[in-house]
Amino acid sequence: MTVTTKYIEIETQGDGDIHDITNLIERELIDSEINSGIVTIFCPSSTSSVTTIEYESGCLQDISKLLEEIIPQNREYSHNARWGDGNGHSHVRAALLGPSLSVPFNQKKLLLGTWQQIIHLDFDNKPRNRSILLQMIGE
Amino acid sequence: MTVTTKYIEIETQGDGDIHDITNLIERELIDSEINSGIVTIFCPSSTSSVTTIEYESGCLQDISKLLEEIIPQNREYSHNARWGDGNGHSHVRAALLGPSLSVPFNQKKLLLGTWQQIIHLDFDNKPRNRSILLQMIGE
Amino acid sequence: MTVTTKYIEIETQGDGDIHDITNLIERELIDSEINSGIVTIFCPSSTSSVTTIEYESGCLQDISKLLEEIIPQNREYSHNARWGDGNGHSHVRAALLGPSLSVPFNQKKLLLGTWQQIIHLDFDNKPRNRSILLQMIGE
Repeated sequence: MTVTTKYIEIETQGDGDIHDITNLIERELIDSEINSGIVTIFCPSSTSSVTTIEYESGCLQDISKLLEEIIPQNREYSHNARWGDGNGHSHVRAALLGPSLSVPFNQKKLLLGTWQQIIHLDFDNKPRNRSILLQMIGE
Repeated sequence: MTVTTKYIEIETQGDGDIHDITNLIERELIDSEINSGIVTIFCPSSTSSVTTIEYESGCLQDISKLLEEIIPQNREYSHNARWGDGNGHSHVRAALLGPSLSVPFNQKKLLLGTWQQIIHLDFDNKPRNRSILLQMIGE
Repeated sequence: MTVTTKYIEIETQGDGDIHDITNLIERELIDSEINSGIVTIFCPSSTSSVTTIEYESGCLQDISKLLEEIIPQNREYSHNARWGDGNGHSHVRAALLGPSLSVPFNQKKLLLGTWQQIIHLDFDNKPRNRSILLQMIGE
């Protein structure tokens, strides 16, 4: 049993920009010495999240619409009143969806469903370079 | 330290059908060679989720009502407009609740609270046979 | 590779009381024999949750406001109708946010973002003494 830590890097547009990071993760699995175990995908950030979805434009629009409905960008946030950075909605969305996802893998393949991809959602209100942490534990 | 992968199988009615899968998981722990560690429960699916709740009919109705309020079945979804399969709400609900849950166990017992059960929610709009992935890491 | 189980104890005021538990977790990492791996933070409870946020009063007010908007305390819940304990909203909020969070650590330091803290949210409708479970796996 070993543990391996890696970072993958992406450039986002912010404002809810969604990236399919499945292939980036599988590439790291192939490069690692671990065949089967768990990969924890972790956003070291308070304004971005990871989850899974069927990565097609309809689903992406639908999840974005839900988040705008329940946590709209243009309303008053106590965070914005204190700090003036305008990303109060980003913090609430990220706390709700969460920063962490654990996915099993076997023979260096993620054990995802046929129509299931791992996505990173950047809720910040400006473009960002994001480092996403992968920690693989297994054998 | 070892890693063990198992699948449990359930039949669901779809449409938000909720199953208590706690006992099915504990049965796999008893059959495994691992005494203490983490079990990751993972839905290899983009239309179902796992979380915990007090498994009694009131709580189940309440969580179902919340999901119908914020992500109603009968409205327009871009996913449905593109694919016509009518399960746009299922994808959004599953992405929000998430496909993965990690639960510690000790002496082959899940370390849950007294009133806490592990549930599988099938959001698809038809009955499904579901394989739920369990990956145990520990010693 | 070893696995270590610890509990941290906090006293909460209930009613959505939010605690920053980052330092309590790092203290347990320092006391453990594991240098790098994953810590799973788990609430053995059906009325509390863990996630991450920027721990400043604005963000805490904003997440609390969202939860009150989509899952208000003072409305009818089937759980309350059956059991009369008035914490139906607590169960729904906890099921939505989830009881479990997995965070990688290295050299006994949590690999969090600069403005990211780990929080415990107690949704029950009265003060509680809470035991939060930490399970570290690594080497």
